[in-house]
Amino acid sequence: MNPILETFPNPRTGRDYTIRVRAPEFTCLCPKTGQPDFAELVIEYVPEALCVELKSLKLYLNSFRSQGAFHEAVTNEILDQLVAAVQPRYMRLDAEFNVRGGLYTKVSAEHRAPDWSPD
Amino acid sequence: MNPILETFPNPRTGRDYTIRVRAPEFTCLCPKTGQPDFAELVIEYVPEALCVELKSLKLYLNSFRSQGAFHEAVTNEILDQLVAAVQPRYMRLDAEFNVRGGLYTKVSAEHRAPDWSPD
Amino acid sequence: MNPILETFPNPRTGRDYTIRVRAPEFTCLCPKTGQPDFAELVIEYVPEALCVELKSLKLYLNSFRSQGAFHEAVTNEILDQLVAAVQPRYMRLDAEFNVRGGLYTKVSAEHRAPDWSPD
Amino acid sequence: MNPILETFPNPRTGRDYTIRVRAPEFTCLCPKTGQPDFAELVIEYVPEALCVELKSLKLYLNSFRSQGAFHEAVTNEILDQLVAAVQPRYMRLDAEFNVRGGLYTKVSAEHRAPDWSPD
Amino acid sequence: MNPILETFPNPRTGRDYTIRVRAPEFTCLCPKTGQPDFAELVIEYVPEALCVELKSLKLYLNSFRSQGAFHEAVTNEILDQLVAAVQPRYMRLDAEFNVRGGLYTKVSAEHRAPDWSPD
Amino acid sequence: MNPILETFPNPRTGRDYTIRVRAPEFTCLCPKTGQPDFAELVIEYVPEALCVELKSLKLYLNSFRSQGAFHEAVTNEILDQLVAAVQPRYMRLDAEFNVRGGLYTKVSAEHRAPDWSPD
Amino acid sequence: MNPILETFPNPRTGRDYTIRVRAPEFTCLCPKTGQPDFAELVIEYVPEALCVELKSLKLYLNSFRSQGAFHEAVTNEILDQLVAAVQPRYMRLDAEFNVRGGLYTKVSAEHRAPDWSPD
Amino acid sequence: MNPILETFPNPRTGRDYTIRVRAPEFTCLCPKTGQPDFAELVIEYVPEALCVELKSLKLYLNSFRSQGAFHEAVTNEILDQLVAAVQPRYMRLDAEFNVRGGLYTKVSAEHRAPDWSPD
Amino acid sequence: MNPILETFPNPRTGRDYTIRVRAPEFTCLCPKTGQPDFAELVIEYVPEALCVELKSLKLYLNSFRSQGAFHEAVTNEILDQLVAAVQPRYMRLDAEFNVRGGLYTKVSAEHRAPDWSPD
Amino acid sequence: MNPILETFPNPRTGRDYTIRVRAPEFTCLCPKTGQPDFAELVIEYVPEALCVELKSLKLYLNSFRSQGAFHEAVTNEILDQLVAAVQPRYMRLDAEFNVRGGLYTKVSAEHRAPDWSPD
Repeated sequence: MNPILETFPNPRTGRDYTIRVRAPEFTCLCPKTGQPDFAELVIEYVPEALCVELKSLKLYLNSFRSQGAFHEAVTNEILDQLVAAVQPRYMRLDAEFNVRGGLYTKVSAEHRAPDWSPD
Repeated sequence: MNPILETFPNPRTGRDYTIRVRAPEFTCLCPKTGQPDFAELVIEYVPEALCVELKSLKLYLNSFRSQGAFHEAVTNEILDQLVAAVQPRYMRLDAEFNVRGGLYTKVSAEHRAPDWSPD
Repeated sequence: MNPILETFPNPRTGRDYTIRVRAPEFTCLCPKTGQPDFAELVIEYVPEALCVELKSLKLYLNSFRSQGAFHEAVTNEILDQLVAAVQPRYMRLDAEFNVRGGLYTKVSAEHRAPDWSPD
Repeated sequence: MNPILETFPNPRTGRDYTIRVRAPEFTCLCPKTGQPDFAELVIEYVPEALCVELKSLKLYLNSFRSQGAFHEAVTNEILDQLVAAVQPRYMRLDAEFNVRGGLYTKVSAEHRAPDWSPD
Repeated sequence: MNPILETFPNPRTGRDYTIRVRAPEFTCLCPKTGQPDFAELVIEYVPEALCVELKSLKLYLNSFRSQGAFHEAVTNEILDQLVAAVQPRYMRLDAEFNVRGGLYTKVSAEHRAPDWSPD
Repeated sequence: MNPILETFPNPRTGRDYTIRVRAPEFTCLCPKTGQPDFAELVIEYVPEALCVELKSLKLYLNSFRSQGAFHEAVTNEILDQLVAAVQPRYMRLDAEFNVRGGLYTKVSAEHRAPDWSPD
Repeated sequence: MNPILETFPNPRTGRDYTIRVRAPEFTCLCPKTGQPDFAELVIEYVPEALCVELKSLKLYLNSFRSQGAFHEAVTNEILDQLVAAVQPRYMRLDAEFNVRGGLYTKVSAEHRAPDWSPD
Repeated sequence: MNPILETFPNPRTGRDYTIRVRAPEFTCLCPKTGQPDFAELVIEYVPEALCVELKSLKLYLNSFRSQGAFHEAVTNEILDQLVAAVQPRYMRLDAEFNVRGGLYTKVSAEHRAPDWSPD
Repeated sequence: MNPILETFPNPRTGRDYTIRVRAPEFTCLCPKTGQPDFAELVIEYVPEALCVELKSLKLYLNSFRSQGAFHEAVTNEILDQLVAAVQPRYMRLDAEFNVRGGLYTKVSAEHRAPDWSPD
Repeated sequence: MNPILETFPNPRTGRDYTIRVRAPEFTCLCPKTGQPDFAELVIEYVPEALCVELKSLKLYLNSFRSQGAFHEAVTNEILDQLVAAVQPRYMRLDAEFNVRGGLYTKVSAEHRAPDWSPD
């Protein structure tokens, strides 16, 4: 089970603003071969009542180090868990994986609160 | 005949998300001269029920190595075959060919499912 | 208390134009560890009646050098103080912090005057 | 007189797709001084029934080598001649000239078929 | 007084096209200290009946070499004088000044003819 | 214990030539905190009778994934084990570690056979 | 068998000068898997009586397209064949292969005529 | 007084190898104006019996935050204190300061043990 | 016949110093096909009694525009003519030609006065 | 007459170290046309008893703003005046001028004290 994603109260409610976190050291295992995979994750979100605490985010991402994970599935899983913990107005996750078999893969997904609309 | 493009079930239906695959090692033959051509392909798609399996995609792209192919035709042909196999909500293919005769050519095409609209 | 942000009259009223100031030498202290944090700030605004005087802006930003400040809070605080001093038609602040714990964080916020609309 | 721009039938009618050709070796003469000018041209178009044949395009562009040509005029002239030969749904030409007198000049023009609308 | 900005007739009326001139060698004096300031100017415009002649533009910009000029004011002044001389359908001026006091400033302004609308 | 480094006979003895392998996906654990460390390794060597087999090299480097290792010690340890396995005329290892605590560290070591001299 | 490497007489004997040819489109097959490998070759030489003719060099390099070849062996083999054909005073070959299994490999070899010494 | 620079025993004596530490977050105060200065330091050394402990190095460098320091003097002072603490066979310090008054200054100094000679 | 290379007296005899001129707009014709070739030339020299006048150098280089010229021959020919005109203590010419047939060629030659030795 | 170059005592005699100052805002006038020239100067020196004071260096360089100066002559003149003022063990000046007539010129000169030898 992954560590808990901790949050803290949004210090500036009443304004839509954006927090972007780039995590270039994400690594998990390929479920087929057991060999390591590597990716750079970029999380971008507009907080509602909560912000994600950075140290717990780091530990959460590190917890995938020994887990098998397919590119498409793990990107959506991380987005879902972050959305559940932070309940943001908007959140987007880009996962750019290192080359495998001569192919470079990037998976991008986003979540929007029901009442959210871009500028 | 090109190898079969294999697919697997989209692990996260119910959300529009994007998968981008960059393939910098595409090569085919010039139909006029028989000399090799080279291109970097970028495939970007929003899956419906299926995702393309990466190893079969690699073998499929490698199968053009000994085929004659015009830039404009081969780009559309690959897009058509990918669309037939994956039946995505949206798919785009950019093929950026190496310089020939001092000219650098890039062909870009996209497919949209009937009910698909960009953000 | 931070130094006063000085202003001067907008030399070209009657036209919406944009002033962008990049300040790559912002530094404050982490409230948890007391260790220094560093960021590059980018302020972009459309003036109404006033422009911010650059030397007072530099001294204002330097005054955070010995203050503890969380990323999300300090970005919004600086924006609020700039808006109060300059009363611009539009203002945006991007604060890109140096890596901590393997994570790179950027906070972006903007203010719009009630009657302001982008192009 | 410039060489004839040859065309071939669009291999994939029924889909709007884009062909971009970058030609970094364009050179003509300054009509005032007789000295050489240099530019990188980028042609981007959406074909209707015809595509431009690349070798004839190269010879056509090379034919300006000994012609005097002003930046603004020659860019529009090349676009007009390409449009006449290819009759595209959309075509754009960017001509980025080398520095002269400390100034870098780029001229950009586009043509749209009557019924064409961007995405 | 600044030298006269000379013009020549637009060689291709009847089409909206864009001319961009980058001038990386602009220099004037700081009115407070008398020390030199430096900037890169980018002028982009859609001509109506007239285009600006490049050599006269160079001499016009050089004429600021011994003039005191504030960033915000001089950017708007140059745009106003260019608009008066060229009477374009659209014109934009970006002036990116060299660092002073650790701050990098860029001023951007644009002019639109009454009937002009972007694409 | 680390996996065995396999070798194959140098296919071109009688000439000093150089093989360089860049491995940007090295990761181990910090012995103090248990948190992951990341580095890009560059191995450069002049073979004598043996060359290192690339797949076994990859598995060997992957085996550090769950080991605690100090920067200075692990760089020398990997060099020593490679030298023992390959017995090259010359070998150099550069290990460039990701930033920790605001500091970027690179450790570089080399081995020379007794009779080896650079060009 | 590879095509013949053609030569022409050195047009400027009596002076040591250098010719460098970069060939970014080299491709052969992996002898183990049969899958394509890609490399950028750089050939640098000081001619004695002969220079290599560029079109025959291109055809020679293209002839490896369907051959199995190990990185270390093929680099030395190409250098040996070029030396045999051109008999240069000095020749160096760098072959930088695309990533395989997360590892980037470059092989560099050089030949010196008995009486040749670097500057 | 600056914090103590801690050391640990060199884990691989008997081989000259190099440790390079890049510290892009150095800041001190200008003794004339009291305003902040910023620099990127690069420390490169060949250890004898001791290596510098990275966390104590960070705290040592941070201790200059509130000290006045001239570029030339502080670079030599830091090198002298590092040499006294680590007693390396070789050490070099490059300090690249941010622009002030339109000038970019870099100070570089090195120390060599009496019996040390470069390769 | 090429225009005359004009010179002026070296303004600072008694000191070896270096003048480097980069000419990115060199163009000539391929003697085989009659099609244009392009190159960037870099001339670097240590003057004795004479320096080359820049405007005459430009006209001299432009005079190759309509001449057929092989890469290896024209590089040596230009160096020989420059040496004859300037009689420098040292001169080097690098000519980096644009890609042809997928190959990028650079020719480099140098001249040394009998009594000249590098630093 | 140019302003006086002020100096201050070398704070660390007894060690050869290097001070490099990059001045990207140098401008003077072309003696032939009266039009402005621009250059980036890089001054690198090893001090003996004196260091150059940075503010006076800036004012000294600014004083060329209204002077006519040929590239080769002004580079040597500035070096001579700096050497006279600072009396360094070693000093080098690189002056990289902006493009004129399609040519980019760089002049490099150095001074060595009689007893000075590079590392």
